[in-house]
Amino acid sequence: MSAERAFIDSLKSLASDPAARGLADDCAVLEFGGETLVLTHDVLVEGVHTLPGQDPADVAWKLVAVNLSDLAAKGARPLGVLLGHMLGAGDERFVAGLTEALTRHDVPLLGGDTSSGGPPRCWGLTAIGRATHRPVPSRSGAKPGDSVWLTGPLGAAMAGFEALRDATGADSVAYRRPLACLAEGEALAPFVTAMMDISDGLLLDASRMAEASGVALALTSVDVPIAVPENRRADALRWGEDYELLFTLPAGVEPTVSAWRIGEVRELEGAALLLDGEAPKAPLGYEHA
Amino acid sequence: MSAERAFIDSLKSLASDPAARGLADDCAVLEFGGETLVLTHDVLVEGVHTLPGQDPADVAWKLVAVNLSDLAAKGARPLGVLLGHMLGAGDERFVAGLTEALTRHDVPLLGGDTSSGGPPRCWGLTAIGRATHRPVPSRSGAKPGDSVWLTGPLGAAMAGFEALRDATGADSVAYRRPLACLAEGEALAPFVTAMMDISDGLLLDASRMAEASGVALALTSVDVPIAVPENRRADALRWGEDYELLFTLPAGVEPTVSAWRIGEVRELEGAALLLDGEAPKAPLGYEHA
Repeated sequence: MSAERAFIDSLKSLASDPAARGLADDCAVLEFGGETLVLTHDVLVEGVHTLPGQDPADVAWKLVAVNLSDLAAKGARPLGVLLGHMLGAGDERFVAGLTEALTRHDVPLLGGDTSSGGPPRCWGLTAIGRATHRPVPSRSGAKPGDSVWLTGPLGAAMAGFEALRDATGADSVAYRRPLACLAEGEALAPFVTAMMDISDGLLLDASRMAEASGVALALTSVDVPIAVPENRRADALRWGEDYELLFTLPAGVEPTVSAWRIGEVRELEGAALLLDGEAPKAPLGYEHA
Repeated sequence: MSAERAFIDSLKSLASDPAARGLADDCAVLEFGGETLVLTHDVLVEGVHTLPGQDPADVAWKLVAVNLSDLAAKGARPLGVLLGHMLGAGDERFVAGLTEALTRHDVPLLGGDTSSGGPPRCWGLTAIGRATHRPVPSRSGAKPGDSVWLTGPLGAAMAGFEALRDATGADSVAYRRPLACLAEGEALAPFVTAMMDISDGLLLDASRMAEASGVALALTSVDVPIAVPENRRADALRWGEDYELLFTLPAGVEPTVSAWRIGEVRELEGAALLLDGEAPKAPLGYEHA
């Protein structure tokens, strides 16, 4: 990933607007007309982010969900999306899945572009939203003494992925059709000190929040709710794609939505992430497929 | 292109926001915070929109220019761009070209995403701007009696493309480094009845303006300024990628920027596009590479 890192660093140095919150790992936040816009753009590539033969409807759904999840972590209410689409087989399924995802999240398609080309095909989506609370939550505001919270159980997407990959016939909906926690993000935004979505695995994303905030996050493994058998706990904490929200609240503040307390924020003294008192074994995030 | 047309029609039916101006052929216009946002997203695909061995710096420049040109046609002032980028060889050149294009047009990079994958690689850019005049100019407002205008000569991009393709050593900068007519678009926006950029060829784009407006555009071939020898006039009118602005003004109104009067708007009686009094021979737009 060093090539990606170097490229992103090059791009970040281009981000001349001080309001820009960083490329490729966070949303852009832009003051406009006395309000605040939140913008994000995520890309899915055939074979990198998809399984062979995967239903294009599920690809379209995920493209929408991953972008809206970024807005959810900012407490932003979506205004619409723009789509970049490479034409190909199964486009009628793609449109069907896109329709379902946009309808389910109540978000309009504003525009976009299509092209021939591929395989591999590539899809990009830009989501734009209105911040419902200012300052807009970021991943950098966690303070020592805060509690660490999670909106829902982890591992369901992993189990769904394995069911789909191995064609077991078991339920794969959590992997194929994740939901962005838009209502939760909006309800939490006024209270959190930091917030982000769990897209790359709890441990990896928690370490990112810790680093961005200059603190340590100390998590308790058994307090993390999981949707898979106990013997998969370590995997569930690393897998990602559940799109739950990870957030911090000052001690004593109860969350305004259903959530689990999974740890606390400490002063940084050594490792930025502790799991049951120790730095967890790498990899912190699961390398998909 | 019927597959693309069908797909776009499917997508358009999803565009539930009445403010959305249509997918894949126009910008989205969105009221926000008492102001008006203009958004566009264009995609470039390796081998479809690029020449073999083309400098990635030129690809990045064009990606920026084509999107900003869409904003220019709306009289919008850019607020920033988001980039979807597939990592690969020549990324340092890509960043260099992106930097040059954004600096030249004075536009910040707000965010984006990177991925592995390809070839072919695919790049998407979302540009967001602030409308400087409302109502925002569209391609659908041309009225019978209006004059038809063009901001600059055509054919330079075609000549540059051929120089690059055939490695003649002749100047190819007009093809590699087009400039979006942002200042011109902003200056014209308060006065035009219709406006669009010439990306797919004058005749094809003029026919689209005519169809969108429900009128006929009658152009006079010799009045169209060209940047190539006279024997290439027919090609220059079809080639595109010059990113000049095509616009209509009420009769007697002079443009506020340097421009050429190339025809007039008539009632629709038969062909939507007339060149020297006749419907021009297809193809109206040049099929690139």
